[in-house]
Amino acid sequence: VKASDRLSQISGVPIMLVDDLDTPFPTVDLDLVARNLQRAAGYFAAHNIALRPHIKTHKIVEFARQQVAAGACGITCQKLGEAQIMANGGITDILLTFPILGARKLSRLAALAERIAMLTVADSKQVADGIAQAAAGLKGGIGILVECDVGGDRCGVQTPEQVVALAKHIARHSSLRFAGLMTYPPTGQIEKTRAWLHHALGLLKAAGLNAANISVGGTPEMYRAHEIGLSTEHRPGTYIYSDRYMVANGIGTFGDCALKIVTTVVSRPTADRAIVDAGSKTLSSDLMGFEDYGHIVEYPSARLAKLSEEHGHVDCSQSGNKPKIGERLTIIPNHACVVSNLFDQVQAISGRQFVKALKVDARGQVQ
Amino acid sequence: VKASDRLSQISGVPIMLVDDLDTPFPTVDLDLVARNLQRAAGYFAAHNIALRPHIKTHKIVEFARQQVAAGACGITCQKLGEAQIMANGGITDILLTFPILGARKLSRLAALAERIAMLTVADSKQVADGIAQAAAGLKGGIGILVECDVGGDRCGVQTPEQVVALAKHIARHSSLRFAGLMTYPPTGQIEKTRAWLHHALGLLKAAGLNAANISVGGTPEMYRAHEIGLSTEHRPGTYIYSDRYMVANGIGTFGDCALKIVTTVVSRPTADRAIVDAGSKTLSSDLMGFEDYGHIVEYPSARLAKLSEEHGHVDCSQSGNKPKIGERLTIIPNHACVVSNLFDQVQAISGRQFVKALKVDARGQVQ
Repeated sequence: VKASDRLSQISGVPIMLVDDLDTPFPTVDLDLVARNLQRAAGYFAAHNIALRPHIKTHKIVEFARQQVAAGACGITCQKLGEAQIMANGGITDILLTFPILGARKLSRLAALAERIAMLTVADSKQVADGIAQAAAGLKGGIGILVECDVGGDRCGVQTPEQVVALAKHIARHSSLRFAGLMTYPPTGQIEKTRAWLHHALGLLKAAGLNAANISVGGTPEMYRAHEIGLSTEHRPGTYIYSDRYMVANGIGTFGDCALKIVTTVVSRPTADRAIVDAGSKTLSSDLMGFEDYGHIVEYPSARLAKLSEEHGHVDCSQSGNKPKIGERLTIIPNHACVVSNLFDQVQAISGRQFVKALKVDARGQVQ
Repeated sequence: VKASDRLSQISGVPIMLVDDLDTPFPTVDLDLVARNLQRAAGYFAAHNIALRPHIKTHKIVEFARQQVAAGACGITCQKLGEAQIMANGGITDILLTFPILGARKLSRLAALAERIAMLTVADSKQVADGIAQAAAGLKGGIGILVECDVGGDRCGVQTPEQVVALAKHIARHSSLRFAGLMTYPPTGQIEKTRAWLHHALGLLKAAGLNAANISVGGTPEMYRAHEIGLSTEHRPGTYIYSDRYMVANGIGTFGDCALKIVTTVVSRPTADRAIVDAGSKTLSSDLMGFEDYGHIVEYPSARLAKLSEEHGHVDCSQSGNKPKIGERLTIIPNHACVVSNLFDQVQAISGRQFVKALKVDARGQVQ
């Protein structure tokens, strides 16, 4: 039974087609979402690795609940505001993978940790000390994973030796628990990640410290998570929607991409140029290594070569068929996470049928 | 009298500092906004060119009203949804510079044209015919400017001869008025723009058609608008906030940039790397020809070299002073228009004082 059928049976509302909505708008196919979640749940269950999806991709409470219902141990958030909204929506186990600083944010974090199982990260004494102070008086304190930079060149301690020093520092605070390691490794470095973490775990063991949780992130290599051999949990984000970048990385095909932009050809000023009503305020400017801004489903040889804010410039010189004024095109974006963040709502569909508008709950002004 | 003083006198609310807000957030300095609007109003009045600001930059009703109060003849919108929200906010003269297509949008356009003075554009017979049909029965019809591609390679008819053909087509519809020409020329082509428009105007005159309005757009060369010599109105957008790209184009200095992002240094993993809590979901990925993602006011030699979604990667190897964990930095974005579109609110300030939160009225799901 398709998601839309279930819904129209429940609501009794006559079925609307996607064609009834004004462009541009993002659609999310609920059947593909369910399939993507199921595939991931199956893989991680088979490998005995906990699945802790990163909700930054969708920011929608209903999808987070669906991920938990499909077997996720909890969720990952990148912002405190996201975690607050997800907790308000009934999610009870959240890892916040961002260093939290400042009196106001720390008190918001402590308030969350009073209500739900809350883990967060630190890569410096300053961050750990701030959380320790905020967590004083909290029953059970707050669990901290030490963030490790295994080659991603973002946050994180730089060496296994620094892991031990920070873990010891954390363990000395009565309001903190040293809960393990967190890393977001770059693609293509599974062996290096494994070696780095193995070294750190050896040093921790020698120091009498137990890293209960080894949390690794990223969708591109999620189906190789077992090759690291040490992970206790994995944090993929984009897998729920997938996108052009994930397809290029071998995570399924365009047929698995649940988030798409529906746009209209508004101008055909020359034989080889079409202008659509999806620009950088719809698709973002993220290139992700591509030379153009998305995959056009109906005209795969046409190139979305340039974006203005509300115009997409399509070069159809290499396309045998050419789009016509008024025609609707479907675009698979390079990067789903930043696209869903541009919209207050996504349009949930099943095939070509409209199901309902879903509010992107955690986007916007929340810090 | 500074804007914040006026406001605290009115409200009697104790003055809050920007430091009291959690990062990342956009601030808009109302004193700089007023100064930027005043400068533009003075220039266009002196040159007898109407000023029709493009509100895509700010999408805030209060600023649109302020632009009209400062002498603008009306406003420009890029989306029908923007125009609806601005009309609801009391703006009574709007040019919509985007080809409108499809039954639903056309009926929304006609409904707007019933309430306020509404102009729009066409670069094809299809678009003109659709508007004509929607405008049938509207008192006075709808005025259409023919969009001209003078070198911007976006929408627009390609030759002055095509202008005449489309203008004639428009004039034949009893529900349309041919109202003139609209173009968004590329930077650095004032002479070419002038020649193109001059040619088209000659052909129109010979055909007995009057182009009442010659509307030209863009902030980078707004203070050279008089050099085109033919414009009756100009549509700058970014001038209200300015940004790094405009400063690079000689439109004022960093001291004129009213929109800034306040961010916090959350990690200092290496001697030369700082991570801030402003990434591509805060600053967008727009490069605008730069090699990095914004100007850091406090560390002008540091480079915002890379963005993750919520992390900004700062290379401070070339900076004598290095930012510290917990320190707040102020970023002037490359491109203000796409940044304000990422936020539900901007924080209106005067100097370092918080004035009020301003809703970004027209951003979000509206098409």
